[in-house]
Amino acid sequence: MLLDSIREPADLRRLSQGELAELAGEIRDFIVQAVAENSGHLGSNLGAVELTLALHRVFDSPADPILWDTGHQAYVHKLVTGRREMFAHLRQAGGLSGYPCREESEHDFVENSHASTILSYAYGLAVARDARGEEVPGHIVAVIGDGSLTGGMAYEALNNLGHSGRRVIVVLNDNGRSYAPTVSKLSHSLTEIRMNPVYVRRQRRLEQFLRELPVIGNQAERGMDAFKAAVREFLQPPSFFESLGIRYVGPIDGHDIAAMEHAFRNATELDQDGPILIHVLTQKGRGYPPAEDDDEKHLHDAPVFDPVVGPPKAVPTGYTQAFAEAVIKEADADPRIVTITAAMPGPTGLLPFEARFPDRCFDVGIAEQHAVTAAAGMAMGGLRPIVAIYSTFLNRAWDQVVYDVALHRQPVVFCLDRAGITGDDGASHHGVYDMALLTKVPGMTVFAPSSAQELQQMLHDALALDGPVAIRYPKGKARQVGERAVGAGLAANRLRSGDGRVCLVAVGKLVEAAEKAAEILAADGLESTVWDVRCCQPLDEELLTDARRHVVVVTAEDGLREGGVGMAVADAIHDRCDPAAHPRIEVLGVPTSFLPHAKPDRILSELGLDAQGIVAAVRRCLPG
Amino acid sequence: MLLDSIREPADLRRLSQGELAELAGEIRDFIVQAVAENSGHLGSNLGAVELTLALHRVFDSPADPILWDTGHQAYVHKLVTGRREMFAHLRQAGGLSGYPCREESEHDFVENSHASTILSYAYGLAVARDARGEEVPGHIVAVIGDGSLTGGMAYEALNNLGHSGRRVIVVLNDNGRSYAPTVSKLSHSLTEIRMNPVYVRRQRRLEQFLRELPVIGNQAERGMDAFKAAVREFLQPPSFFESLGIRYVGPIDGHDIAAMEHAFRNATELDQDGPILIHVLTQKGRGYPPAEDDDEKHLHDAPVFDPVVGPPKAVPTGYTQAFAEAVIKEADADPRIVTITAAMPGPTGLLPFEARFPDRCFDVGIAEQHAVTAAAGMAMGGLRPIVAIYSTFLNRAWDQVVYDVALHRQPVVFCLDRAGITGDDGASHHGVYDMALLTKVPGMTVFAPSSAQELQQMLHDALALDGPVAIRYPKGKARQVGERAVGAGLAANRLRSGDGRVCLVAVGKLVEAAEKAAEILAADGLESTVWDVRCCQPLDEELLTDARRHVVVVTAEDGLREGGVGMAVADAIHDRCDPAAHPRIEVLGVPTSFLPHAKPDRILSELGLDAQGIVAAVRRCLPG
Repeated sequence: MLLDSIREPADLRRLSQGELAELAGEIRDFIVQAVAENSGHLGSNLGAVELTLALHRVFDSPADPILWDTGHQAYVHKLVTGRREMFAHLRQAGGLSGYPCREESEHDFVENSHASTILSYAYGLAVARDARGEEVPGHIVAVIGDGSLTGGMAYEALNNLGHSGRRVIVVLNDNGRSYAPTVSKLSHSLTEIRMNPVYVRRQRRLEQFLRELPVIGNQAERGMDAFKAAVREFLQPPSFFESLGIRYVGPIDGHDIAAMEHAFRNATELDQDGPILIHVLTQKGRGYPPAEDDDEKHLHDAPVFDPVVGPPKAVPTGYTQAFAEAVIKEADADPRIVTITAAMPGPTGLLPFEARFPDRCFDVGIAEQHAVTAAAGMAMGGLRPIVAIYSTFLNRAWDQVVYDVALHRQPVVFCLDRAGITGDDGASHHGVYDMALLTKVPGMTVFAPSSAQELQQMLHDALALDGPVAIRYPKGKARQVGERAVGAGLAANRLRSGDGRVCLVAVGKLVEAAEKAAEILAADGLESTVWDVRCCQPLDEELLTDARRHVVVVTAEDGLREGGVGMAVADAIHDRCDPAAHPRIEVLGVPTSFLPHAKPDRILSELGLDAQGIVAAVRRCLPG
Repeated sequence: MLLDSIREPADLRRLSQGELAELAGEIRDFIVQAVAENSGHLGSNLGAVELTLALHRVFDSPADPILWDTGHQAYVHKLVTGRREMFAHLRQAGGLSGYPCREESEHDFVENSHASTILSYAYGLAVARDARGEEVPGHIVAVIGDGSLTGGMAYEALNNLGHSGRRVIVVLNDNGRSYAPTVSKLSHSLTEIRMNPVYVRRQRRLEQFLRELPVIGNQAERGMDAFKAAVREFLQPPSFFESLGIRYVGPIDGHDIAAMEHAFRNATELDQDGPILIHVLTQKGRGYPPAEDDDEKHLHDAPVFDPVVGPPKAVPTGYTQAFAEAVIKEADADPRIVTITAAMPGPTGLLPFEARFPDRCFDVGIAEQHAVTAAAGMAMGGLRPIVAIYSTFLNRAWDQVVYDVALHRQPVVFCLDRAGITGDDGASHHGVYDMALLTKVPGMTVFAPSSAQELQQMLHDALALDGPVAIRYPKGKARQVGERAVGAGLAANRLRSGDGRVCLVAVGKLVEAAEKAAEILAADGLESTVWDVRCCQPLDEELLTDARRHVVVVTAEDGLREGGVGMAVADAIHDRCDPAAHPRIEVLGVPTSFLPHAKPDRILSELGLDAQGIVAAVRRCLPG
């Protein structure tokens, strides 16, 4: 196998184009196998095989940093930078991260997997490089997908790159799945002309000449305008980038290694004059038929599967499925209900809704800020918008939640999927900030369901409230309960009444753990009270009053401990005037630290956020 | 006075163009007088006089919502919608807000004064309008400044508007101060042609024809490319907008009411086909010489002044001035230090730094997200970036602070001016979230200086730390202390040792109030301990140990109480195993609510965040 000979990027430079094609095939087989065994991102990595090989042949990583936006396209990069063996433990605890990881390799720079950031890092690294004033300064290469270009911060960076003229090579990895304006109409040969140095010099002279021309008078305008219209069609993508001051080259076939190498080598010359963007067209899932036809991104993040059969079609499960059903039921009953997603209709469970109400589902691209403020506008106009989003991605729109939605008291409902510990995707995908932050938004109601049925009830109740509401629920299996066990409104739900000694106050997913803890304690002769908080903000006065009557209160949540729900409960039941009169309180939650990837239950257990952890906390607190 | 006759927008429609010019003059005099007496935004409002009159003559507010981005350009709008008398109490407690205010008028929609949001509201309102399916649907007009267009979320919304084809009329109020790409080279008459309905129909036919053309072959390309280069120069601003799917009209003289009315009336026809942008060129400060020449935005937000002489030149004072001095001193000693601002070099005190180190100061536009991640990139490249930003605007970049800076443990220093209660600008300008949020960022050190000298010491210490640091300081006068009173490192500072009964734990600006409270209590025979927390995260163990020994602990901060520093102190000194052994703790801070505009000291006093409030808390807590 050629792959056996690739220990570092330099090894790639010794291969012929024929060998490279062979290697690309081996890499595809390797990735399909590794993902089939461990789960992982399939389509985006299969699409970036040739691109990655071409980049590592032309650029000298890590002296020339190669930066990956939303690093789930970086498996090939990991393979060719000496991490092949680690793929056996892809995304396992202690094993290879599914994203670039600075501790793994000097070739990795950016670990964050939130989209649209990479051009800003590139700008910053370029400023730093230029400040060093080296004799032969390196190239800085930023690879960004077409989807990520819909994110506002990518535009902020493009604008700043163009304005500053910093030397950065942007590679637009365009699989045409999400970002319409980049679907270019320029032919390959037009591209070749643009990259020809003779042409480039001529163009520069021409532009100089035009700048010195006097402004055109009246008589020329009609002809001018007609021609502009004619030319515009051909100008679309370059004019967008070039009006921001970034030269455009492309589109290039992203599976033609030689063509890309040619473009990249040219860019290493052209970038002396400032930022340049190379538009590369790739096919997501390339070379593996089950992934090539994955229109609805089922295989974006694939589960363990049989490589011969292909991965199963992803269907919403657990809370996502409960939400998918409930949102249709509510929308059937109320025509004002609309839904908004930031490029994730599938993973958030909105596809069935979109199929049923195509005019009432709005996918705004990877643009969380706009999604939230657009929802505020829809609510102002009399609609009842539901924003379906991953908990961690709402961090992108914190300002908009506070000052656009809440300040105007608009009834926007945020349905936060993947709340709490999400596991495989590591530090930047955990949804641990939602409760600590959203409970600090004036007028915001915050729900955390402990079962599929609770989620459906909360969505119903949320839509009857007059201000903003968030409902946050975890990834994975949802607890199922009978109708009579479901709470209502803003009330907490007492699931078990104890002997007055111990009160367990649990939030969302931790309710199940608290019930198990109560079982364990009961077997030991200790009857605990168990409350399902349900509504984290405002807190139910009855819950607080009841908790205050106990000797020990232990709270548990799968969100940040500091500033979380438990601390709010502790603060509320704390008797300022007579500390001796208030219960011993232990607050359990996620610590303020970045948690590495591992299975969610394993992480929760290590943090003491399971039945055993709750029991241990009770035993620590009980007097005597 | 014509102004006397204007009670509502309909009154404007009765005036001749000559009368409108006269009215514009009267309005300018009125605004200068009102701002001179009360302080307020001068330049942006003087620039928008004719624009506002033209908008209200053509559109039927509020049926046609007129939406203002960064509402500080809305004084004229307020004047012509029946709020003239209220200008006597502009920005005073209980008086007229300096921004649109939904409670004041049905003509006001958006109160948030963070930039770049308005196109998202407009999109949302357009979706809602279209869902209503009225027979004669209204127009939705969004006025956005050229500066705000540098914000990423404006681009997210433009992209979504263009893609969706929603009918929104965007008015780009371009005073050319900040956003270079919009400086257009198109002539007025070209504009006229583009707005001519005959031309528009012809252009549409032409575009249809071009879409049906086969792709151009090799032979035509050279000529094509040369012509493209020639045309590009003329295409700049429209091609940017039109490549996003938004038709462009302009530029129009923003002080020619008749020309704007003509353009707006045409737009009411053209917008049947989707979003349209009208580019209007205005002059900031128009008609009032002291404001016209305000290149450095000294009069953006002017203090009370003598209208004959003009406002004084704004110079940094208080903490801003202390920062301005310190950052130069540090940068003199360390060439790695660079500074970053999001379009506010003046108000954050960076102008002297920029003058001294022009190559080390980076203004990235109103683009907080990019600013923060670019800083992470600079730090990765070996620089020591300092991001100077208003506390409230860092909310825009929360995600980037957590996942771009902190996750990568980069030594970026955030200098947060206007922290705490800022007063005049109302709810969205208070900097109350910084401590509650930033103390939840893993590895982040958070300082709150209580004097100018402390700020300077903290900046010095921050630059020696190996991870991210935030220093947050308030608007207004800074306390001055002698060298010996200044703390160091991460240690808290005990300012006064009491008799063991009362311990006051104060943060930043509240340290002065705590000292005064201690004086008041001392006069009453009660000697309190007073701690200046200095470092809010991590908390000093010595402070915690000492506080634990007291009978009563009162904490005080000018940030959010819930999840703030006081609650962290209370949590840390709380004895879980023996509540009777821990002190009575009262945590004072800003409540979770939106605070209206008023003078900062008045707001703080109403919240009990002054010496009297601290004394009262102590008396509530003291046993017996």
